[in-house]
Amino acid sequence: MKRAIFLAKKARGWTNPNPLVGAVVVKDGRIIGEGYHERYGQLHAERNALANCKESPEGATIYVTLEPCCHYGKTPPCTQAIIENKLKKVVIGSFDPNPKVDGGGIKILREHGIEVETECLKEECDKLNDIFFYFIKHQRPYIALKYAMTMDGKIATVDGESQWITGEKARAYVQHLRHEYAGIMVGIGTVLADNPMLTARIENGNHPTRIVCDSKLRIPIESQLVKTAKEIPTMIATLKNTDIEKENKLKEAGCQVIHLPEKNGHISMEQLIVELGKKNIDSVLVEGGGIVNGTLVKEHLVQKVYAFIAPKLFGGKDAKTPIEGSGIGAINEALKLEPPEVQMFGNDILLESKVIDKCLQES
Amino acid sequence: MKRAIFLAKKARGWTNPNPLVGAVVVKDGRIIGEGYHERYGQLHAERNALANCKESPEGATIYVTLEPCCHYGKTPPCTQAIIENKLKKVVIGSFDPNPKVDGGGIKILREHGIEVETECLKEECDKLNDIFFYFIKHQRPYIALKYAMTMDGKIATVDGESQWITGEKARAYVQHLRHEYAGIMVGIGTVLADNPMLTARIENGNHPTRIVCDSKLRIPIESQLVKTAKEIPTMIATLKNTDIEKENKLKEAGCQVIHLPEKNGHISMEQLIVELGKKNIDSVLVEGGGIVNGTLVKEHLVQKVYAFIAPKLFGGKDAKTPIEGSGIGAINEALKLEPPEVQMFGNDILLESKVIDKCLQES
Repeated sequence: MKRAIFLAKKARGWTNPNPLVGAVVVKDGRIIGEGYHERYGQLHAERNALANCKESPEGATIYVTLEPCCHYGKTPPCTQAIIENKLKKVVIGSFDPNPKVDGGGIKILREHGIEVETECLKEECDKLNDIFFYFIKHQRPYIALKYAMTMDGKIATVDGESQWITGEKARAYVQHLRHEYAGIMVGIGTVLADNPMLTARIENGNHPTRIVCDSKLRIPIESQLVKTAKEIPTMIATLKNTDIEKENKLKEAGCQVIHLPEKNGHISMEQLIVELGKKNIDSVLVEGGGIVNGTLVKEHLVQKVYAFIAPKLFGGKDAKTPIEGSGIGAINEALKLEPPEVQMFGNDILLESKVIDKCLQES
Repeated sequence: MKRAIFLAKKARGWTNPNPLVGAVVVKDGRIIGEGYHERYGQLHAERNALANCKESPEGATIYVTLEPCCHYGKTPPCTQAIIENKLKKVVIGSFDPNPKVDGGGIKILREHGIEVETECLKEECDKLNDIFFYFIKHQRPYIALKYAMTMDGKIATVDGESQWITGEKARAYVQHLRHEYAGIMVGIGTVLADNPMLTARIENGNHPTRIVCDSKLRIPIESQLVKTAKEIPTMIATLKNTDIEKENKLKEAGCQVIHLPEKNGHISMEQLIVELGKKNIDSVLVEGGGIVNGTLVKEHLVQKVYAFIAPKLFGGKDAKTPIEGSGIGAINEALKLEPPEVQMFGNDILLESKVIDKCLQES
């Protein structure tokens, strides 16, 4: 199963909104075939593993990180392939919460006399697909905040300097995160200040869809985002009654313009998230700034936080912090996170924490 | 030597402004005696180890974490005890930078025909005495900031709630830190807001001297600090021309009042630190708030940071952050820290980082 997990990870950033899945076929203690779900729309892991078998898989065991599907989607059901290939046993990591599967795969296999073992390295297998599980359940993208701050919680000096807080290794890892998420979101303030590209600058990087929260449609036509909107999907989320002329120019340049209702003077972030879900964007990495982050935190719309911390101190009452807005007033209303996983990138630290499910928080 | 280091640590919080030192006497591969410097003014580690020997130490080797002293202080020189006891060899961890020693101990031993080996586990031995080394060199206390913040860098919510950000385990560890430091410093804002005791609430805790930065002498006579000033040393640092009547009341209650010159409308922190050094306070744990911390950081008066981080988010542009004041304007002027050591306390994280020496920073 460890091998299957390793294989699954190879497709990070390419399968959205499908899950990451790896499969290994074992016969008489030898691996005779292996595969993974490589890209959205292509063959599933089980079919790839079976196709790669060096000898007949009849009577073999297949280890698969996720319950095999039993429905017709872009490809025929994998349960059928397992049955047709006369495998003897299926060892599964995660259950598939997709309402079209949800135990159905296991049931069909057992009905065909195939032995099924479940929950093998379940925790590790589940971890592959936090995004997929969330998206299937809520039809909304999994929202992750990413920010880089000093050890005293500042994302810029009092004079507004922010490049760079963290070192090269941390910044390189952010490029990998961008590749893994289907969308990347910023506020118009960040666009006006930094004129960023928001691409995944790694070899064979899959650029995320770029989403700008811009209630007054202030994004410059000559910004890098608009200029490259024909090559890389770019969405501008704005209020309903805006400048039609500007809007048309943005559309001509290749941008999608999304109209949203107003909330507290800004676009409704919750509505934006619902709209992104409808567009099959299963995950969004939010790279600020403080106002966008503040709204998402205040409205409990966040599932994960990547906090990069640089070992330096800026000080300053007026220096910007990663999450601003109106904030949470009472400590017991704070957004609670799981104990973070800690990684070092050069001298910088990454604290990676999932938000504790609201229902669990309240219990 | 590992045993000697272990022994040295047992005296944490009790030897200031003396160093932590452990010693182990070994003969024919057996430990025949061991000891450590237990309390300021009492016997040094070497003398304790020799006194505890179960058999004659003649011809034995002594492992000692710090170069033995060669001068008369509160106790006679340890080199003399080693020579009189006819030890064959001395293995040393750290060199003693005390100008009264500084290689003199090693020289005397060698002159008496004793074999001396140096720098055994030097890094670990040095780590025992960051405070001692700093104090001996600068005659100023070693200043450490301690604060507890959320993962978005807030020390309170926008409504000012701050109790508690971290959990019990992190807070219990702070009590140990208070025990280890000779002084504890807060601003008057913290006293007025929280009316704290600032004691080391652990079994056999050694309470630090409490130091309040209070330029306008606003501390209430009925505050806990003033009420307990006869039992626990308490210093009020204030500007030169203050309320004589209030000052006399504070003195009657047992407080020491220190007059300091003004700098930017507050007491001069640098002068305060110099004064504390003169009073033999070798180390100060600074527990805020943001203004005191801000001045110390801006003036580069800090040697270490203990940043406790709780896995939660408050958000809020107006929520307080650990280090405020006017701040540093340019990124390259930031106070640079070493890559932090990471420890978990329950769900909370402690990042412990030394400030990189200014000379090294500039190179």
